[in-house]
This record gives sequence, structure tokens and C-alpha cells, in this order.
Amino acid sequence: MKQTQQYLKAQNSIAPLFEPESVAVVGSFKEGRPGGYRVIKNLLAFGFQGKFYPVNPLYDTVFDRKVYPGIREVPQSVDLAVVITSAQVVPEIIGHCVEKKVKAAIIVSDGFAERDEQGARLQQEVVRIARSSGLRLLGPNTIGVVNPYVGLITSQYGVLYEKIHTGSIALCAQTGLIGPSTMPFEDMHYGISKICDFGNKCDIDEIDLLEYLGNDPKTKVIAMHLEDIRDGRSFLRKVKEVVSKKPVLILKPGRTEESRKALASHTGSLAGEDRIYDSAFKQAGVIRVSTYKELFDLAKIFAYQPLPAGNRVAIITMTGGGGVMGVDVAVESGLVPAKLSPETTERLAEISPWLASNPVDLGPAAVVVDNFFSHYEEIVETVLKDRNVDCAAIVFSGVPRVLDYQIFARLETKISKPVAFWIYGPKLSLAEEFARNLENHGFPAYPECEPAIKALGAAFRYAGIKSRLSQAEEKP
Amino acid sequence: MKQTQQYLKAQNSIAPLFEPESVAVVGSFKEGRPGGYRVIKNLLAFGFQGKFYPVNPLYDTVFDRKVYPGIREVPQSVDLAVVITSAQVVPEIIGHCVEKKVKAAIIVSDGFAERDEQGARLQQEVVRIARSSGLRLLGPNTIGVVNPYVGLITSQYGVLYEKIHTGSIALCAQTGLIGPSTMPFEDMHYGISKICDFGNKCDIDEIDLLEYLGNDPKTKVIAMHLEDIRDGRSFLRKVKEVVSKKPVLILKPGRTEESRKALASHTGSLAGEDRIYDSAFKQAGVIRVSTYKELFDLAKIFAYQPLPAGNRVAIITMTGGGGVMGVDVAVESGLVPAKLSPETTERLAEISPWLASNPVDLGPAAVVVDNFFSHYEEIVETVLKDRNVDCAAIVFSGVPRVLDYQIFARLETKISKPVAFWIYGPKLSLAEEFARNLENHGFPAYPECEPAIKALGAAFRYAGIKSRLSQAEEKP
Repeated sequence: MKQTQQYLKAQNSIAPLFEPESVAVVGSFKEGRPGGYRVIKNLLAFGFQGKFYPVNPLYDTVFDRKVYPGIREVPQSVDLAVVITSAQVVPEIIGHCVEKKVKAAIIVSDGFAERDEQGARLQQEVVRIARSSGLRLLGPNTIGVVNPYVGLITSQYGVLYEKIHTGSIALCAQTGLIGPSTMPFEDMHYGISKICDFGNKCDIDEIDLLEYLGNDPKTKVIAMHLEDIRDGRSFLRKVKEVVSKKPVLILKPGRTEESRKALASHTGSLAGEDRIYDSAFKQAGVIRVSTYKELFDLAKIFAYQPLPAGNRVAIITMTGGGGVMGVDVAVESGLVPAKLSPETTERLAEISPWLASNPVDLGPAAVVVDNFFSHYEEIVETVLKDRNVDCAAIVFSGVPRVLDYQIFARLETKISKPVAFWIYGPKLSLAEEFARNLENHGFPAYPECEPAIKALGAAFRYAGIKSRLSQAEEKP
Repeated sequence: MKQTQQYLKAQNSIAPLFEPESVAVVGSFKEGRPGGYRVIKNLLAFGFQGKFYPVNPLYDTVFDRKVYPGIREVPQSVDLAVVITSAQVVPEIIGHCVEKKVKAAIIVSDGFAERDEQGARLQQEVVRIARSSGLRLLGPNTIGVVNPYVGLITSQYGVLYEKIHTGSIALCAQTGLIGPSTMPFEDMHYGISKICDFGNKCDIDEIDLLEYLGNDPKTKVIAMHLEDIRDGRSFLRKVKEVVSKKPVLILKPGRTEESRKALASHTGSLAGEDRIYDSAFKQAGVIRVSTYKELFDLAKIFAYQPLPAGNRVAIITMTGGGGVMGVDVAVESGLVPAKLSPETTERLAEISPWLASNPVDLGPAAVVVDNFFSHYEEIVETVLKDRNVDCAAIVFSGVPRVLDYQIFARLETKISKPVAFWIYGPKLSLAEEFARNLENHGFPAYPECEPAIKALGAAFRYAGIKSRLSQAEEKP
């Protein structure tokens, strides 16, 4: 029963959370302080495309904008309210939101269920008020959401940059750590569709997000950090449905009894045995990741690259040692080193006999063949076009002038097999610049071997999951 | 018998490889090209403190220095020769080295055993010539060595920086990837005692390096990448001896059958089953790492911090979610979350009741306590001085002006328990700057959760290994 309700609710109403035409910000506007002031500042800096209304009876203006004494006094309709007040007044404000027919509210304020019994009761009261009208609630105790496509950002903290790259990765987490005031999204050039911090999940939860993001045309991959799952059965049904359309990566802490204790005090919820989650995730086709970094790293391959048709990986490397490390990671990630076809090895051997095996180690050939790098593009293309190759990892040094980086730009248009790069080099800035150039051309690039190859392994795994799920759907 | 010889040789003679008073560089001096020209350029840029002599019959001068026609014509004695010529002339040059009583030679040239049968014969010939006199050989097919304490660098490639920080981490690898032209050591502020690329290991090998570095007062930790181990029994004996004095971290690729095949074509040697290595490493007290990145990450804790007396870790975090992730990694790394003593929880509760458990999550307290960060130093000190705490991970955001970073500088003098930091934040440059400040005060800092806590786990593991080995030694 609960499940059906939740499905209907999510379908009806969480879009205003990410795509509001108008936002009311209810909070303090004390200059330079966290709170409403920062939210307005961030909305201005990120160029929010909708309207927004500061709300507080104690202020007249903020950033030369009129401040309304209450949300009911805002003259236009309000899609989304961002509430950053003391917990005690939140029920009253949510009541005003209901009266104003606000569609969604983000309760940034803390001091609710995560704090104590009294806070938990206050949270119940807030939910009760909202449920009376169908107003959707995110939080409490959340930094809210980001939608870089419309410049929406609800963080009450300083962000230190003014732009988040638009892209197709949706990030959701049960921690504020996911937000722009802690993650260097601009420096990472990380292409985002939506960000959401669940907070206490008093209403909007992982099922709502899966539903919304599953249907969001801007989102190609969903990366989620979940400390608990409230309704396992509904979650499983929903995630399976979404996984048949797009990949879902989940980081689920609480792998150990000790961390489950820490979890209980962090979220106030009791997480179940890890193996239950693990087998449920497997069953639903979720790609489980084990570190916070991996959640970001693996998402990139799905955002940028096609899925591989099989698990045969070619490794084209500048370092023999790196190639060997890559094979270890490949096999441990479910890939197998591709056995190059006779045509390929023949062609490569014409350039240099040292090239004619996989990993294709360019090191030895580069020292014996004159003007070796003039052959680079041909080598990469020959290997990638091999019918025995499903995907490739390219290991390259980010140093100036070794070769025309445009090779990779051209490659983008010629090859429809997934490729991931490991870019290293003596200057971090040069390696980062090269990596960003590659990512601008749609190739995920990593400063280490492991995530590059693990990402290909995850893409292969998801390709299998997707085909299994769609076959299952076709059956009567 | 072979083992005894090797021990004697190493004791006698590999020091000139790292601490030569005079170096001859035999190679091409074609301007701007890899080869002898770059070696001289690098030696000048890094300020090599010894003498060095360019050698080549076809040049008169390079960088305004006299070029000697042959090594025998150098008027002074030569400790170390760096040979970067075509493979064919290497035997002749090594012959000259023998005549000149050179103590060690680095054969940078390739085209030996790693190339083909003919190369393998050439390599045997070179070894035979050197053995006649006790001349020690590194390589062939190596980028050689670095000793930042004396400005020694033998790379024949451009490095793109001119300083490697001196420190106590020794890096050895069976790949040129370890070298300064591929690793951003300056950007990493990575403190190095010695670097060595083994190359083909025709003479100097991992046993020699363990012997030398085990006795090197500048080296506190040895981090080694090994594709094969030639003499397992001697290696085990030697590594055990070294491990009783300082930690040895080893990255040993070839964990899978597929990578062992790739290894065979990379080094020409057949690596054995991985489980044999694994159990041998365990027996010898080697800390095995699984990724190239981890080799560097874990070495830092041994270089900077004392060993923990036990495995009870405190996590002091700005993010509850991060604290939970930390507990998972801690337990999986052999640590347990410390149970804070009643005195500690009482003292913390005076500041805020939300602080009184481990992980010590500052987030909730920071929003309710006025001027919260004025208590930060006391919180960290109270937790670290707790008798139930053996080590700590501190999770902190690298943003400006949150608190006086000098807190950590003062901490350094007050606490003799190991601490590792996870530093995150919205700007990579600020997080990196903070991390470097911390490392300058002796605290290893990482941009992710996992390596910070894994490092503490490795330190605990090594503390146990060391005490076990020293107890075993004390027994008759």
C-alpha cells in the first residue's frame, strides 16, 4: 500500500524540486553568513534562470531585492521553498507553504530526527502538515539540490566557484559531502545533470529519486550514496526498472558491524546486514562500488562512452610495467585481454614487431622506429577496429608535444567502442589539462591505472545486466 | 653459494650507484634529444654535487664542458658510469669501465634481454666483462637512479622540474614509470631518499637494493614494484632482515594468469603462481599493496609518523557520512573504532553532547555551539591523548579561514600517536595547499578517505610484524 502511494507521489511531484520556475528562500539574510544570504548569493552567482523570492519578516532587502515578510506574501506562485530557519518555526513555515500551494520544499534546517526525540517529533509534525496537501519535502538536514542546467543551487554555504558543468551524471547522497561546497566540481570539470542530498529522508527518498532520474532525459547514469534503504521491496522493484534503462551505481557503507553502529548514530536508522544489501543489489543489477571516489570515477564511463559488446580489452600503453598492472586490474574487473586478430598483428608488425601483442607496449618500438609517433593514430585505430577487441584502455603520458592530441578527437568520430585513459606525467597540471581535453572529446581519463580499467569492467558488467533485463522484459 | 656472493657484493659495492663522487656520462650529446645531453642537463638542473664527465669521441663540448673521447681518458677517477649508447658498443664501454676501475655502471641502453635472443647474449657478455672486476651493473634498459640528497639524476628524458624533495622514502621499480620524467614528484612534494629502476636486473637486483636501503640512514621505508624475484630464498631471508628494521611495501603484479603472460613478454622472465608470492611476503613481513598509487600513498605514513601501539582508531570528522565510510575502511584494514574513555566523552560532552562518541562528528555540534572552532584544538588533543586511542584519522575540509592551521603544527609536538588526514574541499588548489602544509608538519594527507585510513592500518600491521620479528630475534 505504502509502495503504491509513493510511486504515485513521485510521479506527480518531485520535478519542482529540480525544475522550479520560482523559488522562495526562507532564512536569515545576515551578510556573509551561512543561511539564506548564501543561498541567494549562490543563485545569483550560478545564474538561476527562474524567479526567486527572499522571505523573512526582519529584512527589507538583500542583494537589492525585496524581501517578503512571509511566503504567503510572495505575489507570484512559488514552486519550491528553501527553508533555512530554526527547527522550531519550520512547521509554521511548511503550513504557509501548504496555504501558498508550494509544490516542493527543501528543509535545510537541522535539529530534527538526526538530533533527538524532540526533533523526531517535530519532523513527524512537519511531514503531517505537508502530507495534507501533497507538498513534497526534501530533508530536513540537507544541503538540497543542484540543477546546473538552470543554475539552481540551494547550498547555504560558500561554494568558491560559480559554475558546475552540465552533463549527464546524477549524484544523490545521504550526506552533504556530495554538495558543491565540499566537492571541487568545477576543477574536476565534472558533467552533472542533478545533485541531491537526501538529508533525513522524511518524505522524498531514494525511490522518488530513482523514479525521477530514471525518466530524466538529461541523466544517463545515476550514482547514489545510501546509508539506509527504508523500503527494500519497493526500492528493489524501482531500481530494477531504472537499471533496464540506465546504470545505477550505489555506494552503500555499513559493510562492517562497527560502521553500522556509526550509521545508526549518524542517520538514526538501523541498517541491515550487509550481505542482504549485497545480494539485493546483485539481483537488481545495481553496480555496487566500494569507495566514494569510485562512485565518481565509474560514473564517467557511462556518461561519456558506449557500452562494450564484450569483455575483450586491448591495452595500448607507453609503459610495459603499466600494461602488466592493467591486465591484473582488467581480469579482476571481469575483462579478458583481447587476442588481436592476425590482420591486426600483421599490420602492427609492419610498423614494428614489438607492437604485435596485447598489451600493445609502444615503449620498445618507440626507441627503434624513426618518427614513431607518426604511426600512433594508425596503431590506435587498427587495434580498436579489430573484431576481437571490445574496448580499450590507453595509457599515455601527459607531456607537451609528444603527439597531436587531435588524434583522440578524430578517434571519437571513428570508433564506437568504449575507451578509457590513464594519463600520468611529470607535471600534474599538464596531465590534468590533457585529461580534460580528452574528457571534452568524450573519453574518460584518470590519473591512475585502476579506475580507468575498472570503469571498462563496470561498463561491460552493465551491458550484460541491461541485456539480461531487457530479455526478461520481452518474455511474456 | 650464490646467495653469499650476492650479499658480499652488495655490501661492498652498490653505494657508488647512489653516492658517487664522480660520474661519467657516455652517450650522444645531440642538443634537445633524449640521451647523454639530457642526463647532463638534468645533472646541472638538479645541482649534482659531485663531478661529472661527458664522454663521446664525436663531441668536443656540451654545456661548455669538455667532452672526453673515452672513459679511460677521463683524468680523474670515476665512481659511476651512465651508459646510453647503442647496445652493440656497450660491451666495449663496460670493458673500458673495468680498465678505469669504475665502481658501478648504469646501462640505460635497451636492446638487450628484453628485446631478443641476440640481446640476451649481448647482456650475458656485458655481465661477464663486469664480473671479471667486481664492477656493479644496473640495467640494462633502465632510467637509472635518483639521489635527491646529492642532486644525482640519471634520466635520459626531460623531467619538467628541477627539484625532488629530500625525504625518507626509497622507491624501486622494475619499470621506468617510477622515474622523475613520468612521476610528478615535485608537485606531490614527495620526500624521497633514493629512486632506482631495476631495468633488466642483469646484476643489481632487489636483494642488493634491500641490503643497501636497509642500511641507508636516509631511508625509513622501502616501496618496491617487482615484476619477478630471481632468487626467492635469498630474497626472503634478506627482506625479513630488512623488515625487522624498516617497513618494506611491495607491489607485485602478476596476480592473474593473464598478467603473468604479459609479464613474460615484458621482462622475459616467468613469474610464479601468485599465491606463492603472497604467502612468502606474509611470512617475511612484507606489506603487499595492490595498486601503484597505494605504493606511494602507504609509504607516507611510515616516512612521517610513529607506529601505533595498537589498532584502536579515532575518527574526527566534519562529515558524518565520511566518518561512517572511514569506519568501514578501518575495520577492513585491521583497525577497530576506539571506544573513548569516560574522561574523554565527559570532556567532549561539556563542549557538546553530539561530540561524545567515535567517530567524533563535528558537524552537528558545529551548528549548535557558538564559536565552535575555538574548541577544535582541544577536541583533537583530548581525543588523541585518550588512553583508549592508538591512532587517528582526521577528516577536514581544505577551505580558507575555517581555523588556524597552526593547530596541527602544535599537535605535532604534543602527540606521539600516528595521525593521517583526509582533506577534501571545493577547490583542489586549496585542498592541496592544506595537505602540503600538513605534510610539512609530518602528517600524511590524502584527498580521499581510503588511503588515509588504510595507511593507519598498514602502520598497525607493520608495528605487529616488527615486534614479532624482534621477539623472534631475541630468542636463542
